[in-house]
Amino acid sequence: MQVAIALYDRFTVLDAIGPYQVLSELPGVDVVLTAQRHGPVTDERGGAAVSAVATFDEVPRPDIVIVPGGPGQVDHMAPGPLPDWLVAVDQSTRWTAGVCTGVLILAAAGLLEDREATTYWLAKEELARLGVKPRNDRYVFDGKYATSAGVSAGIDMALALAARIAGDDAAMAAQLGIEYDPQPPFNAGSPATAPAALVTAKRAASRFRAPAQ
Amino acid sequence: MQVAIALYDRFTVLDAIGPYQVLSELPGVDVVLTAQRHGPVTDERGGAAVSAVATFDEVPRPDIVIVPGGPGQVDHMAPGPLPDWLVAVDQSTRWTAGVCTGVLILAAAGLLEDREATTYWLAKEELARLGVKPRNDRYVFDGKYATSAGVSAGIDMALALAARIAGDDAAMAAQLGIEYDPQPPFNAGSPATAPAALVTAKRAASRFRAPAQ
Repeated sequence: MQVAIALYDRFTVLDAIGPYQVLSELPGVDVVLTAQRHGPVTDERGGAAVSAVATFDEVPRPDIVIVPGGPGQVDHMAPGPLPDWLVAVDQSTRWTAGVCTGVLILAAAGLLEDREATTYWLAKEELARLGVKPRNDRYVFDGKYATSAGVSAGIDMALALAARIAGDDAAMAAQLGIEYDPQPPFNAGSPATAPAALVTAKRAASRFRAPAQ
Repeated sequence: MQVAIALYDRFTVLDAIGPYQVLSELPGVDVVLTAQRHGPVTDERGGAAVSAVATFDEVPRPDIVIVPGGPGQVDHMAPGPLPDWLVAVDQSTRWTAGVCTGVLILAAAGLLEDREATTYWLAKEELARLGVKPRNDRYVFDGKYATSAGVSAGIDMALALAARIAGDDAAMAAQLGIEYDPQPPFNAGSPATAPAALVTAKRAASRFRAPAQ
């Protein structure tokens, strides 16, 4: 089984590497990092470059496609090599998935029309504007479309996807393999639990429009 | 503040990228991916190559150094470029850290002598043989040495480290930034919670020796 994860300039590296690590734990699964060109693709911070080992053209029929988020997402909200490839491979995928603001790319490409999905907490209103029903869940499956909340949520989505493609035992083996027994030192990982002042400050600094009052 | 994360052949990519993503959320923190040579360094699965932007020689005095784990760890348990550099930079670091079996590299280099530390669940006995007191914690701080359990635990350790270097508010902002509100679909991420048969099978297949009966 082939899983393609798309990379693009200014992606969020954990969005891509979380699902990569989980799914590459599964026997018989080949995870291919793809991009418009071969070679290093630089993340949003400029400090991490991950190599694409295949171009989009070289991966025409992946069983699963996953698109990460990141500030560079804004460059792929209209037809172009990445969204065009997503639409093309979606014709034959078993699962089409987005992490964080990568979900906006799927939505803008028309792949999530009238579906339920989740995305980065600051991008929910943007997702609604794109004709998708936003849900406040860690990950959402609607038909063959899998979507996750921000960045680290791609790990949870990938484990849920692992169960669907390889069974619960294989998914649990992957979880134990990466010792995913999370114990964050704070409970600030969602706008529902983080200090209100922090949520307000993040909203004010966000590149997404605030919700209507 | 400069954070250096060391890469080496057959490292586990999430071990490095988890802390990279967390710490690069902090204002004024520069996270530098280092290796023996510039350019792509390939992970244990062969599917992900992350670029080193600096050689060890080019980063002589990082404030924080972090070494990830992975099967390639076995190649760095005796003097050589990576452990020699870790010992050299440790002279002036504020924090020296290891994720997963990266902790074994620190231990073999003599940096954790008589200290308490944690590591990948399958490597606890190996850690004890290296003169370190293993603890069954998600992450451990002993003096300026920070260590974490396997793979994904580097995220939790990095958040705890973020609090120590930048304060609780900055750490919580980083956590909200990566929406780290983990909700794994299974509770199989530690040998204490995973199905016993799965733990037994993983132990049997492990490259580390089983604990004495």
